[in-house]
Amino acid sequence: MSALMSPEDLETALRNVGAERYHNRHRFHRRQYSGQCTYEEIQAWALNRYYYQSMIPIKDATVLTRLTDTEDRRQWRKRIEDHDGLKPGDGGIERWLKLTDSLGFPRDYVVSTEGILPATRFAVDAYVEFCRTRSPLEAVASSLTELFSPNIISERMSGMLANYDFVSKETLAYFSQRPPQAKRDSEWALDYVKAHAGTRAEQELAIKALEFKCNVLWAQLDALWSAYVDKALPPGAWVPGTIAAERGKAA
Amino acid sequence: MSALMSPEDLETALRNVGAERYHNRHRFHRRQYSGQCTYEEIQAWALNRYYYQSMIPIKDATVLTRLTDTEDRRQWRKRIEDHDGLKPGDGGIERWLKLTDSLGFPRDYVVSTEGILPATRFAVDAYVEFCRTRSPLEAVASSLTELFSPNIISERMSGMLANYDFVSKETLAYFSQRPPQAKRDSEWALDYVKAHAGTRAEQELAIKALEFKCNVLWAQLDALWSAYVDKALPPGAWVPGTIAAERGKAA
Repeated sequence: MSALMSPEDLETALRNVGAERYHNRHRFHRRQYSGQCTYEEIQAWALNRYYYQSMIPIKDATVLTRLTDTEDRRQWRKRIEDHDGLKPGDGGIERWLKLTDSLGFPRDYVVSTEGILPATRFAVDAYVEFCRTRSPLEAVASSLTELFSPNIISERMSGMLANYDFVSKETLAYFSQRPPQAKRDSEWALDYVKAHAGTRAEQELAIKALEFKCNVLWAQLDALWSAYVDKALPPGAWVPGTIAAERGKAA
Repeated sequence: MSALMSPEDLETALRNVGAERYHNRHRFHRRQYSGQCTYEEIQAWALNRYYYQSMIPIKDATVLTRLTDTEDRRQWRKRIEDHDGLKPGDGGIERWLKLTDSLGFPRDYVVSTEGILPATRFAVDAYVEFCRTRSPLEAVASSLTELFSPNIISERMSGMLANYDFVSKETLAYFSQRPPQAKRDSEWALDYVKAHAGTRAEQELAIKALEFKCNVLWAQLDALWSAYVDKALPPGAWVPGTIAAERGKAA
């Protein structure tokens, strides 16, 4: 086993995971921000990613059960507030539903998640399960994809606004809220990981946890590509042209 | 809610799930048995499916923890014996490793599972988790894909033996052992489901459980196609041409 890394070297190693494995490098992301996606592909992306968004507060509540320090829990709790909001009509999940509204999906269909790809469900559920069963250090480290999210969000927003007439700043409101939250959360999580990974083995586990989380995001885009770009739709998944109102007739 | 189905109608409904969703309908299966797969695609299939095989006894032990009747456990235990064997060198996992041996993979690499696709791991782990958290009825019902396996196995074996000079009856020994085991197990499980699904709601849950399991199998072939046929390899997965000995130089 190699020697303990300095906190700075650990941070570099973690940032390298993002440089190599974060889903901004996925072909679906490139297709999306460069304007090559069809309306149906954007619908499928928003529908599937709703499941990820909806499980984030459950994932964060799971992490909350693992943190034994009051101040740590106080900090982590903000994540749940961001996604669930402080009152009805508020929060990240609500903002995501405004996006699926604008793409013509009935809310009860989206919330039922019955049309999502099985691979989306497996990946997202694996993330929650990871946070339930691994060490608190690994659970916190797996959240560090947020270190890389401000770039992908700005690329996605400017690209989508420039290339698709069916999205607007209002329908993409989820993303405009996220960068300051992600910055606050990922800085806290990075400090936590640097402080709590006290052995080389723990440092390696933190790096592996971040790789795992990159896989969770990557697998979701792989499945979207296969089903809706390559058009190899798995049985039971949402079929384009069904359920959602026609383009331009969204609520 | 509709009325309770007769046991015969429930069986018909379960068999219909297989007719519509079992992975014998997947394009990767057609490609495989018709001789269109490359050597590397067969390698990737065997490497990834090892993880599924290796987790089956763990899945079955999980189900065993849910069965409260001694006779039920006695019957279910046979599944673990089939896969783990009665002595070293015996059992389904060992036979699967003979296949990966013949495809040039070092055993320790296969057993480490470090080169499998994340989507394979997510799907298989979802299956174990399903059996841990759902009702015993749903756990048993999810095994009923074995009702449909004799056909796919005979198609796969005869097609592979006819079309690939790098497989043989010896390297496919896993499959020649399976049909009588699958027949015995699926008949028992079908009787169990028919006897224990005492309400329409439970019958629907059993049908949903079988759909879920079909999704677990389907998602694995989707991921194989995406990574190794469409060649959109996710970061960290086995790269063809690495690790395994060259074709014809297997142990």
